[in-house]
Amino acid sequence: MTKKKIGYLGPIGTYTGLAVNALFPDSNAFDLKEFSNIQNCLLAANQEETNFTVVPIENSIGGSVNMTLDWLIHEIKVPIQGEVHLPIHHELLANPSQVQNKDHHLIYGHPQALKQCEKFLREYYSHIEIRPTNSSAEAAKIVSNNPKKPWLAIANSIAKEIYGLVDLEKNIEDNAANMTRFIVLGREKLSLTADKMKSSLIVSFPENNIMMLYEVLGLFDKWKIYPTKIDSAPMKTELGEYVFFIDVDTTDKQDNYNSACADMLDLNCTLRHLGTYPTLATVTEPSMK
Amino acid sequence: MTKKKIGYLGPIGTYTGLAVNALFPDSNAFDLKEFSNIQNCLLAANQEETNFTVVPIENSIGGSVNMTLDWLIHEIKVPIQGEVHLPIHHELLANPSQVQNKDHHLIYGHPQALKQCEKFLREYYSHIEIRPTNSSAEAAKIVSNNPKKPWLAIANSIAKEIYGLVDLEKNIEDNAANMTRFIVLGREKLSLTADKMKSSLIVSFPENNIMMLYEVLGLFDKWKIYPTKIDSAPMKTELGEYVFFIDVDTTDKQDNYNSACADMLDLNCTLRHLGTYPTLATVTEPSMK
Repeated sequence: MTKKKIGYLGPIGTYTGLAVNALFPDSNAFDLKEFSNIQNCLLAANQEETNFTVVPIENSIGGSVNMTLDWLIHEIKVPIQGEVHLPIHHELLANPSQVQNKDHHLIYGHPQALKQCEKFLREYYSHIEIRPTNSSAEAAKIVSNNPKKPWLAIANSIAKEIYGLVDLEKNIEDNAANMTRFIVLGREKLSLTADKMKSSLIVSFPENNIMMLYEVLGLFDKWKIYPTKIDSAPMKTELGEYVFFIDVDTTDKQDNYNSACADMLDLNCTLRHLGTYPTLATVTEPSMK
Repeated sequence: MTKKKIGYLGPIGTYTGLAVNALFPDSNAFDLKEFSNIQNCLLAANQEETNFTVVPIENSIGGSVNMTLDWLIHEIKVPIQGEVHLPIHHELLANPSQVQNKDHHLIYGHPQALKQCEKFLREYYSHIEIRPTNSSAEAAKIVSNNPKKPWLAIANSIAKEIYGLVDLEKNIEDNAANMTRFIVLGREKLSLTADKMKSSLIVSFPENNIMMLYEVLGLFDKWKIYPTKIDSAPMKTELGEYVFFIDVDTTDKQDNYNSACADMLDLNCTLRHLGTYPTLATVTEPSMK
């Protein structure tokens, strides 16, 4: 039997890789396929090169992952089949040969990780140049591959093990409750045991009149379904024209959600339903298989 | 008389520099102070190192500039005194010594510029490594300073002139209507002649219940004032807790806006008024003085 292919933001040791482990615990049943950036993950999902694709969509400190939202809205047509919330802890890592060096002059990190450690970096490393990478694991890999350079990386403890680095500092995120939400995209159903269901919706309004959001929230109120996230993104037409990305808690409320969507269409809203899917919250730290 | 200091995202030749020219046309009356990234601009504004500070806040293709929104919400307490909308055109630039080279292998650009040219890059330069910079002008400067390297930069026509580069392609943005909105922060009033007034507000809700947005939009409807932008950002507490960033057209409606704010406080919302300010839309291309 051909194994299902799972695409994710690699290289090995990324947080997205940990999300894959939480979502697909039977690692022998799947073939993992790494992509070096979110765009390539999403292109592969769209072209059905993968059965399922896992990407980050938002973080409790850094906010929405704009690239993911942007591509869900404008570039690809693949439904969401599930999500997982993972605790995120960052470490400041050095090559073992550079631990005694007091003159580090460059820190590599993913822009989202840099945002999540912003206060730490400003307080202790404001004099050091920061260079963005495509993933946290890529940052660790660069530092690992350059033992003679006085460089540091921000990455997780698993990337530390994989790339043979040493931590100078642990838990450097600005808030200990730091969590990232990852979504699974795919054209087939994902079997995931979860208590909660969520639905995601992209809405735009007649004449791009954003006060229509008032009417739409009125429909949610009428049908007793409640949003868990309301975000806007540019329509990419004119400055000031937006689409809205709305997540709704639809646990035991699928019919109400469908009715609210029908009412929105009656208001001449343009809707794209991105999927109704199980939501998995992990409280324990995931580990690498 | 001491000249007023204006801080902006430099180096010379950035789009923010063009916004400064549009907002402060009498260049002899001001001292310009460049900062190498948005955080340093905003820190200087907060510490009153500058009288006025100009930073980008959103673009019609790339969306909100997260760093600016995040700092307005969480880091600084400086009101908005004005805004300007500027048309944005990107060019793909090479060092004159590298124009004949057909083997360019690196493109430098600001992440927002890269987002605005995403389709162009994917179609014609998908094989080339992309490296983010702190500003478009920094990208041009790097390519200018490295005549022997087969590198390219995405920047505007003014950076092209300043840094002595050659365009391989003009208007590479994905949408010709590409516009960026820049805000002026400062603790003193800005004299700016404009027909329209805007107010910006940060709102959070009791128990972070985002359905309260329905009530808040109801108050806007009651007082006949209409939002021009509704965006959410993380509260930075728990995943799923958000604050809302709302711009309202308050041209001739200041009293209504004040009444709506009073009503929001009665609903136990937490408000931070970021300012009521003139909004300047430029249709013509600005130029460097």
